[in-house]
Amino acid sequence: MTAPARFITFEGIDGSGKSTQARRLADALREAGHEVVLTREPGGSPGAEEIRRLVLEGDPDRWSAETEILLFTAARRDHLERTILPALEAGKIVICDRFADSTRMYQGLSRGDLRALVDQLHDLMIGREPDLTLLIDLDPDTGHARAKGRQGHEERFEDFGPELQRRMRAGFLALAEEFADRFRIVDGARSEQDVARDVLTVVEPELA
Amino acid sequence: MTAPARFITFEGIDGSGKSTQARRLADALREAGHEVVLTREPGGSPGAEEIRRLVLEGDPDRWSAETEILLFTAARRDHLERTILPALEAGKIVICDRFADSTRMYQGLSRGDLRALVDQLHDLMIGREPDLTLLIDLDPDTGHARAKGRQGHEERFEDFGPELQRRMRAGFLALAEEFADRFRIVDGARSEQDVARDVLTVVEPELA
Repeated sequence: MTAPARFITFEGIDGSGKSTQARRLADALREAGHEVVLTREPGGSPGAEEIRRLVLEGDPDRWSAETEILLFTAARRDHLERTILPALEAGKIVICDRFADSTRMYQGLSRGDLRALVDQLHDLMIGREPDLTLLIDLDPDTGHARAKGRQGHEERFEDFGPELQRRMRAGFLALAEEFADRFRIVDGARSEQDVARDVLTVVEPELA
Repeated sequence: MTAPARFITFEGIDGSGKSTQARRLADALREAGHEVVLTREPGGSPGAEEIRRLVLEGDPDRWSAETEILLFTAARRDHLERTILPALEAGKIVICDRFADSTRMYQGLSRGDLRALVDQLHDLMIGREPDLTLLIDLDPDTGHARAKGRQGHEERFEDFGPELQRRMRAGFLALAEEFADRFRIVDGARSEQDVARDVLTVVEPELA
């Protein structure tokens, strides 16, 4: 990466601590004087949040994998147009909890082998990749216990079970290899503070 | 067309009478002993109806043209999987008030020149075309007066005004030329009964 990393995403399995780390990074960068927009997917703009509710609520089988990919892509397009791009154009740093890599993983891998379709749709309708992606890597058994312990988490995507979470972890690590230029792997199996320090150590040089 | 036309769509500008004609054709074919599923877009399945509400309600500028195309495609995919294909596989005739040609027209033409994008998305996620498409062709001034006279119509797409409706009419006629193998043009500027008779005259030989 030569340009400063302004669009930073966090990825990882459920319970990996990525949402916490995204928030901590936003706080740290704000303290350092940066203007930061902290956002998340699915959602992140009023329209995308409505689509999020449509996808995440109700019967898990209410949408086919293909329809789900279309809805996530619609939400992402809205989020990109209304939240991410305007903030980047205003010179702000955008930190996003999950982005297209999550769709590559969860829809591309877990619900049939739809990765090629996910990629074609991404190229056609989104195009944009993050400048920097932090993969908070964690053993699924630890992650699963953490996710289950949270209040109000959406069962829809977080009740995959440890076997599938192991496949997801392997899938994220494979993505990190595929997109090695923008992925950085951070070991999530330590204290929140230690992980946050590692994240900052990775991010700071990329902002220069 | 060599196979019997089982998937029949109606297209036309607002107020052209296509919804009425779709219903009349469904009634006539049922009376003739066919099993018929009458449906519509956007919508036509529980999930697609929810997406319909998301697209048609609220501020007209709440979605960009691209997001709107994605939402319509998601609704169409659900409608196809849950309503249209199961009915066709059961040997029924499916009559649909609007389908992909409406997206080619309204999103492809009216909201910027996005026809290429609409086509790519259709090829990727839908693929299926109707066996037969009835274009109810009508002078826009007549159509506009009819649409305005209806109760509870959605302003979102029906308030384009006569100038845009003239472009839409020309666009539908161009589509009929482009897809001449499946389009049939019916003159909508006559009594409901006369138009219904013409529709039946066109459809009956295609069902053989």
